[in-house]
Amino acid sequence: MVMSQKKRPLQAFSEEMPRKGTVGRRERRQAETRDRLMHAALRLFAQRGLADTSVEDITEAADVGKGTFFNYFPSKEHLLIAFGQYQVRKVEAALAEAREAKIPIHQVLRRLVHSVSRDPGRTPLLIRSIMVAPLTNDAVRESMIVNMARGRKALAELMTIGQQRGEIRNDLSPRHLARAVQQGMFGGFLLWSLDPALEISGWLDTWVEIVFAGIKTSEAEKTPPSRPAVRR
Amino acid sequence: MVMSQKKRPLQAFSEEMPRKGTVGRRERRQAETRDRLMHAALRLFAQRGLADTSVEDITEAADVGKGTFFNYFPSKEHLLIAFGQYQVRKVEAALAEAREAKIPIHQVLRRLVHSVSRDPGRTPLLIRSIMVAPLTNDAVRESMIVNMARGRKALAELMTIGQQRGEIRNDLSPRHLARAVQQGMFGGFLLWSLDPALEISGWLDTWVEIVFAGIKTSEAEKTPPSRPAVRR
Repeated sequence: MVMSQKKRPLQAFSEEMPRKGTVGRRERRQAETRDRLMHAALRLFAQRGLADTSVEDITEAADVGKGTFFNYFPSKEHLLIAFGQYQVRKVEAALAEAREAKIPIHQVLRRLVHSVSRDPGRTPLLIRSIMVAPLTNDAVRESMIVNMARGRKALAELMTIGQQRGEIRNDLSPRHLARAVQQGMFGGFLLWSLDPALEISGWLDTWVEIVFAGIKTSEAEKTPPSRPAVRR
Repeated sequence: MVMSQKKRPLQAFSEEMPRKGTVGRRERRQAETRDRLMHAALRLFAQRGLADTSVEDITEAADVGKGTFFNYFPSKEHLLIAFGQYQVRKVEAALAEAREAKIPIHQVLRRLVHSVSRDPGRTPLLIRSIMVAPLTNDAVRESMIVNMARGRKALAELMTIGQQRGEIRNDLSPRHLARAVQQGMFGGFLLWSLDPALEISGWLDTWVEIVFAGIKTSEAEKTPPSRPAVRR
């Protein structure tokens, strides 16, 4: 039986938000198995790519029976959709954090970028596997569209909070600002997956520095000139 | 006989820079045929994708003999490398324009973004074809790495000019600024190729607005406070 992803709470397989009180033991165990399968698959895709990884390789690495796989995922490609959902949860967690803990958006963004890069940043081959599936498979692409839209929605809400606090520019819509951030993030993964010589971990902070300067409230809007500006 | 791309001047098949005086009639005719094959292929890839387009489809659409194709390109995928070179020439043309005509970098960037989007912006299917080849084919990826590096080099020189003129921020290296611009550009194509509902032509100017704010000299660096800042 293929289980509906809609019925399964996404929180259940997120590292970030276990929410143990809200689901029963059976659901929790299912979520753990699903999570184990996804992470085992990511490790294998990172080593040898999606094409050269079989379902049996994945179930063996996850230490579950081969038939079990299809209770969770109709195909290998569907693992990538689950991974996309897992990444979206991180964006939603960043939004919740910004809202509740009142952390500056610049800092939220920096943490988020490191957090969503952790898994894709393992090997260029993993990102290439993650990218090829939606580019070549219509069903995967349809799910990816849904995930990307959910990610942009959370990012747009983050931008709205930033605008309300005077941290993010008000002259553009949160939706557009969110799209620019997502676009840069995806582009960063793509470039690195094609050219691994483009080192990625040290690059992330520089990129956030540039993208944040693009979306923040400008100095002219934000602060009255309290001291003479210094010319370079 | 497969002709070496290194021996063939790239200018010879660029719309932007025909440089008719510098090449003979035979070379010019070869360059025109090569150009015709590439553009015929792009049209077909845009309609039906790379996988569903044969070499014969391309030679027929370009109105040349089937055997002629292999005098120019070892495979269909190599057309995409030629297309990458064609795109890089546009970046190099933008650099030359900025240098010679002293056009503001913001404006150069806006024109360039529209110019490099013209072909990929035909259909999402075309971009997906362009993306899948380097993600799955090592030889195409190697050539793509060379093209991307050439594009970043020209962008970095553009950033250097901007820094010298006080238009581009000086606190980051031109290389990093160029990478951020290229990353956003590639990410934009990728997002749109996956989700065509993300309209692209109207988006380009907004994106340039955001990315330019990220790389420009900040107000604090640039201008002394001549009038009181307005708070929003």
